[in-house]
Amino acid sequence: MTDAAPPRPDETYSYLGPAGTFTEAALKQVPEAAGKHWRSVNNVGEAFADVTSGRSIAAMIAIENSVDGGVSATQDALATVPGLRIAGEYLVPVNFVLVARPGTALDEVHVVNAHPVAYAQSRRWLEANLPDHGHIPATSNVQAAASLFESSNADAAVAPPGIVDHLDVEVLAEQIGDNPNAVTRFVLVTRKRAIPPRTGADKTSLIVELPDDEPGSLLAMLEQFSTRGVNLSLLESRPIGDELGRYRFVVDLDGHVEDERVADALLGLRRSSPNVIFLGSYPRADRREVEYHSKYDDEIFIEARDWLRGILSGEPEGD
Amino acid sequence: MTDAAPPRPDETYSYLGPAGTFTEAALKQVPEAAGKHWRSVNNVGEAFADVTSGRSIAAMIAIENSVDGGVSATQDALATVPGLRIAGEYLVPVNFVLVARPGTALDEVHVVNAHPVAYAQSRRWLEANLPDHGHIPATSNVQAAASLFESSNADAAVAPPGIVDHLDVEVLAEQIGDNPNAVTRFVLVTRKRAIPPRTGADKTSLIVELPDDEPGSLLAMLEQFSTRGVNLSLLESRPIGDELGRYRFVVDLDGHVEDERVADALLGLRRSSPNVIFLGSYPRADRREVEYHSKYDDEIFIEARDWLRGILSGEPEGD
Amino acid sequence: MTDAAPPRPDETYSYLGPAGTFTEAALKQVPEAAGKHWRSVNNVGEAFADVTSGRSIAAMIAIENSVDGGVSATQDALATVPGLRIAGEYLVPVNFVLVARPGTALDEVHVVNAHPVAYAQSRRWLEANLPDHGHIPATSNVQAAASLFESSNADAAVAPPGIVDHLDVEVLAEQIGDNPNAVTRFVLVTRKRAIPPRTGADKTSLIVELPDDEPGSLLAMLEQFSTRGVNLSLLESRPIGDELGRYRFVVDLDGHVEDERVADALLGLRRSSPNVIFLGSYPRADRREVEYHSKYDDEIFIEARDWLRGILSGEPEGD
Amino acid sequence: MTDAAPPRPDETYSYLGPAGTFTEAALKQVPEAAGKHWRSVNNVGEAFADVTSGRSIAAMIAIENSVDGGVSATQDALATVPGLRIAGEYLVPVNFVLVARPGTALDEVHVVNAHPVAYAQSRRWLEANLPDHGHIPATSNVQAAASLFESSNADAAVAPPGIVDHLDVEVLAEQIGDNPNAVTRFVLVTRKRAIPPRTGADKTSLIVELPDDEPGSLLAMLEQFSTRGVNLSLLESRPIGDELGRYRFVVDLDGHVEDERVADALLGLRRSSPNVIFLGSYPRADRREVEYHSKYDDEIFIEARDWLRGILSGEPEGD
Repeated sequence: MTDAAPPRPDETYSYLGPAGTFTEAALKQVPEAAGKHWRSVNNVGEAFADVTSGRSIAAMIAIENSVDGGVSATQDALATVPGLRIAGEYLVPVNFVLVARPGTALDEVHVVNAHPVAYAQSRRWLEANLPDHGHIPATSNVQAAASLFESSNADAAVAPPGIVDHLDVEVLAEQIGDNPNAVTRFVLVTRKRAIPPRTGADKTSLIVELPDDEPGSLLAMLEQFSTRGVNLSLLESRPIGDELGRYRFVVDLDGHVEDERVADALLGLRRSSPNVIFLGSYPRADRREVEYHSKYDDEIFIEARDWLRGILSGEPEGD
Repeated sequence: MTDAAPPRPDETYSYLGPAGTFTEAALKQVPEAAGKHWRSVNNVGEAFADVTSGRSIAAMIAIENSVDGGVSATQDALATVPGLRIAGEYLVPVNFVLVARPGTALDEVHVVNAHPVAYAQSRRWLEANLPDHGHIPATSNVQAAASLFESSNADAAVAPPGIVDHLDVEVLAEQIGDNPNAVTRFVLVTRKRAIPPRTGADKTSLIVELPDDEPGSLLAMLEQFSTRGVNLSLLESRPIGDELGRYRFVVDLDGHVEDERVADALLGLRRSSPNVIFLGSYPRADRREVEYHSKYDDEIFIEARDWLRGILSGEPEGD
Repeated sequence: MTDAAPPRPDETYSYLGPAGTFTEAALKQVPEAAGKHWRSVNNVGEAFADVTSGRSIAAMIAIENSVDGGVSATQDALATVPGLRIAGEYLVPVNFVLVARPGTALDEVHVVNAHPVAYAQSRRWLEANLPDHGHIPATSNVQAAASLFESSNADAAVAPPGIVDHLDVEVLAEQIGDNPNAVTRFVLVTRKRAIPPRTGADKTSLIVELPDDEPGSLLAMLEQFSTRGVNLSLLESRPIGDELGRYRFVVDLDGHVEDERVADALLGLRRSSPNVIFLGSYPRADRREVEYHSKYDDEIFIEARDWLRGILSGEPEGD
Repeated sequence: MTDAAPPRPDETYSYLGPAGTFTEAALKQVPEAAGKHWRSVNNVGEAFADVTSGRSIAAMIAIENSVDGGVSATQDALATVPGLRIAGEYLVPVNFVLVARPGTALDEVHVVNAHPVAYAQSRRWLEANLPDHGHIPATSNVQAAASLFESSNADAAVAPPGIVDHLDVEVLAEQIGDNPNAVTRFVLVTRKRAIPPRTGADKTSLIVELPDDEPGSLLAMLEQFSTRGVNLSLLESRPIGDELGRYRFVVDLDGHVEDERVADALLGLRRSSPNVIFLGSYPRADRREVEYHSKYDDEIFIEARDWLRGILSGEPEGD
């Protein structure tokens, strides 16, 4: 890639920057992004605008954190920006270091700059080791560290381990995240296009609104899945935003839309919901094969359709 | 019809006879049977054998009584004799008279001949008016009265009101049935053939076996209907017969197999059941239009399929 | 027992006679009935009247047959005669012999006398071996054989094997029942009294009506059981009798009313049903211990009540 | 209240400060807090520590926003800090103004300081009117405005309308929130204590964990409510935090723990969940009476218990 000519859109990937963020680490896991132009953006809206306007071929964004839960801004944007598809998911282990300008000692730290999510995930360590610290929030994990070199009152910053490759900081403490197994799930978002073929280890993402006036409508929605043996790996409610008490649901399910049981569940969902957004079927990050009872095998669905077709055509059903 | 040539099978209707039974009254409701040969048979097995062997084009049999419940012999035969279809249902009001040989007074009656079902339905009257009577069972309501003229110990018989047209009996009491609204439902059974077109006031009959080893399988079966807004008008369990505790279910549902919601419920049923027998879709005897929530309209099902097809083909779904 | 004085009611057991029936065989299984007066009655109504009037301490009646299903007369009587309790159940293997007057050969048999249930269970043998036979129904299995010595047209009778101890008949064929494993379940019915203590291998019998106007009410009823891990061993619908389409349900469940999970299911049932009749908790005939998930153990229910009581009393719940 | 003596704990209310926040506006709605000491704290953890340590009698915190959804930090703290109770809820309409140092014109604004939630809720206005702006996050809405007078690069701040009473700022634009009906729900949190009496317009808050290894466990949880006619006004999932895919649920339901149907649902929940935290029953902010079907009335539950008690005691149940 050279800076001489503007990068071609079909060779550009947007991500929440700047360089050094966990989002960049996620993008590094995408083989087809290697050697392409990586465009750093400031927020999810900008990332999705790049995709829908054609400025980028895809955008990498965080969608869920094992400690902090769903990323609301991403979930809400996926629900409201039309024309998007999730093409893949990527997991990045999340841990943090406490960094400072060279020469700073830990007992000299009074004010800590940290992105709110990073701060929340390191709170236990900070409260134990810096009980009197103050907190200044940053817009990104990298920006938290960068602020140490700007007009900021912060003495230290919570940052990703890779920060030492980008900035001249000194690590005061490692592994300060409360949960050593914390992981963030990222998704690569594209414009609508052909669905990647099923691999047997797939995930399907949906956004579902429920009918207003029907008690038990969430129960009914869940039955659409359970009666087809479809397991949910994520179910989060998000306010639709017009008034308290109205929600949409963010759903991840095990399986691919080309799996008969998933397709049939989608049909049931579509019939009973005022709005279903299909966000994509894509390989699971962990490549773990989807398990389900053999009574929901594709053949069972196909055989039942053949049987019904026989009845409707007036032919004997073979007994 | 003449006796000169044997009746043509396609002009023969079998029914549980003899002439004068309620079954004959049901057959009189079938316009296309008028003027054809009516063959009186002794039991359900014989009636169905006539149909499957081609000796008759159809057989009329009782399937349910409002007082006595499902007719087990009919239900079991429909479950085990292959190749049958229900082509229509007919309702016959059921009431009874007490008859005797001319000249008999009510206080001379000590022994009553009656078909067990008729006896059960008249028991209250008999116990009140003839507290010390004995009971001799008959094979049919007509035979009960006929026995009065054979070597029988009976002094009176419980019989259909129309018996006076066939036999020289005297009516000792009218309307002796315990329930003045009692009604029996009959079905006209044919060999498998094209399904009658839907009328909007249809019924569909099924026999369903449940998987053995799964608790909650009846619940799951009922959900196949409820999640598609399909109402059941009949659900009866019948032992499969091999051991205590194993059942099949006789199901009547509101709607026609060509209704999308019914077809989809049948698919779900077929997938989850080791054995589903489709017995037919046919107009309801009472011609009452089937009511269901508009969210289960045909268009809803068709639209959902179009939506899914769009997703699978990789085309935008129009948002 | 002597005939000099009338038998004391508390020493009398009623049963569907006459001597030699399967019902008598069931009564022989009751240790406390040994040596007492056994009163043969003609029908279920008479048996229950003996109990409610105090003429007998208990009555033995058939309630379910593995081939023919529930005994409607018994089920309906239990639903409508108040003040009854089931005190125990008893299983009797059911098979049949074909008997005739001494000297009769099988090929001389043209008309067979048989109780309708026995006839239904032997039909396959009869149709194969006596294809042209006629059928005369009897009021009991013993009466069928007895009729051979009365003014009857029957040449042979279907009867229980023990008939040879009571009548001078010759056995033309053995084991003519279609199902060699056929078994009939009998119950010993008493007036309401203290419930027998639980044994861990118990059954509870109920009759439940469903609210009229609510679709899905059967589903809701079944959920009352499934959400407490209570398994049903019998579920039969019986028409209430006032019009087509209105049913009550005969329910047998695994467990004792003193089991917490059963008691809680009964509460849920009572709340949602216009009418629940508790017919009794009693040891299972097969003495097989009831299996259920440990999450429905008594302690779980007791602990939850303690927890709620703590909340309601304003005390900390111990966390 | 004077500053001479330290404020008595039972006269102290903690809230997310500083003065001027929406949280302070919520606290103003609490009659018994009038004239007491109001202690401004920096975060939810501090607020709850005040309550559990006895430094304050109660703390006011935001729990849900109609646009942004549940406040994760509050939900997670309620799930993990033991000994807390919600004593009441309060609604505060949420809107924003854009403020600047006096003399600043709108077209001079390049960088905006705003709390992330306020920023998210004003994004549409900001993107339309200040398309090239940068964003600096603040720890509170008031702090955003205060930063204008500190060493900050911000030219303007998003702040609550009441800010003009506290700071010498100029309003550049009013009503810049995207949703004019936006409202935030606050709860007053105390230590465990007696539950406020029921008013008929109550809400109950719970946190529920689901058993790990059981598919359909969310469905089963929802059925605990639906089978007792208990409506949910809030259901949010929050990661338990130890690994992706493990959730607890934040539940608000219509009714009071002293309502029989609610108490019974809690029992069912406790039995089926590894962990249920009762957070309190308290009057609804909108005072709207809870509606439910009369079949879930208290009397229905009481009558069923009496019925069962009669059965268990061996007494006739009055039929």
